[in-house]
Amino acid sequence: MKLDFEKSGGLIPAIAQDYVTGEVLMLAYINEEAWNETLSSGRAVYYSRSRNKLWRKGEESGNVQLVKEIRVDCDLDTVIFMVEQIGGAACHTGHRSCFYTAVNPDGSTKELSEPLFDPEKVYSKAHR
Amino acid sequence: MKLDFEKSGGLIPAIAQDYVTGEVLMLAYINEEAWNETLSSGRAVYYSRSRNKLWRKGEESGNVQLVKEIRVDCDLDTVIFMVEQIGGAACHTGHRSCFYTAVNPDGSTKELSEPLFDPEKVYSKAHR
Repeated sequence: MKLDFEKSGGLIPAIAQDYVTGEVLMLAYINEEAWNETLSSGRAVYYSRSRNKLWRKGEESGNVQLVKEIRVDCDLDTVIFMVEQIGGAACHTGHRSCFYTAVNPDGSTKELSEPLFDPEKVYSKAHR
Repeated sequence: MKLDFEKSGGLIPAIAQDYVTGEVLMLAYINEEAWNETLSSGRAVYYSRSRNKLWRKGEESGNVQLVKEIRVDCDLDTVIFMVEQIGGAACHTGHRSCFYTAVNPDGSTKELSEPLFDPEKVYSKAHR
């Protein structure tokens, strides 16, 4: 099994899903190096498109993602990391999931949850 | 609320998730036109990167996705369609989910489910 990193220029999407509840926590991207390190370390490693480098999730905050199971899709160009989110929150805003905003058919939105922590206290300003 | 289509050249990922069980069924891409049509029609509309055109999911097979809820992420560059998958299977292989393959830490894989239908009987050859 070889993931198809070439199709999209070296990066493919990785969905992080709570391995118990199935809640989708976030979507980020991986390159081949991040994929290999995720497999070998058992922790979710992504590639940051904004910082152009490997992103070992939780490296600064301690809120790592322990990878319990992995799925790949039929085209081998998307993966799911089924994770235990240490610290409870996957999102840099302090929300459990990055997908805390619901969109109504008319395009209006509604926030569905409160942050679990204050990101100012967890991250340095440079990390945002 | 305006999705950030510019960041990735006009397309952003859309995760289709079963609105009852939370199972991730597939990941595809949307452009702004697909997004607007999804909102107005209540059915999942994607943009096919291989065919370079709007992809009204289920148009040929009848296996449409009724969009029950929508979520957007903190960066406004990924969406979740929480859907009712008509016909039961979202994947062109006939599996319920495109993510029917588990990956072990050593890179070996295991198929987790059987197809629900024979794709040869549902799709024309041109559609694959």
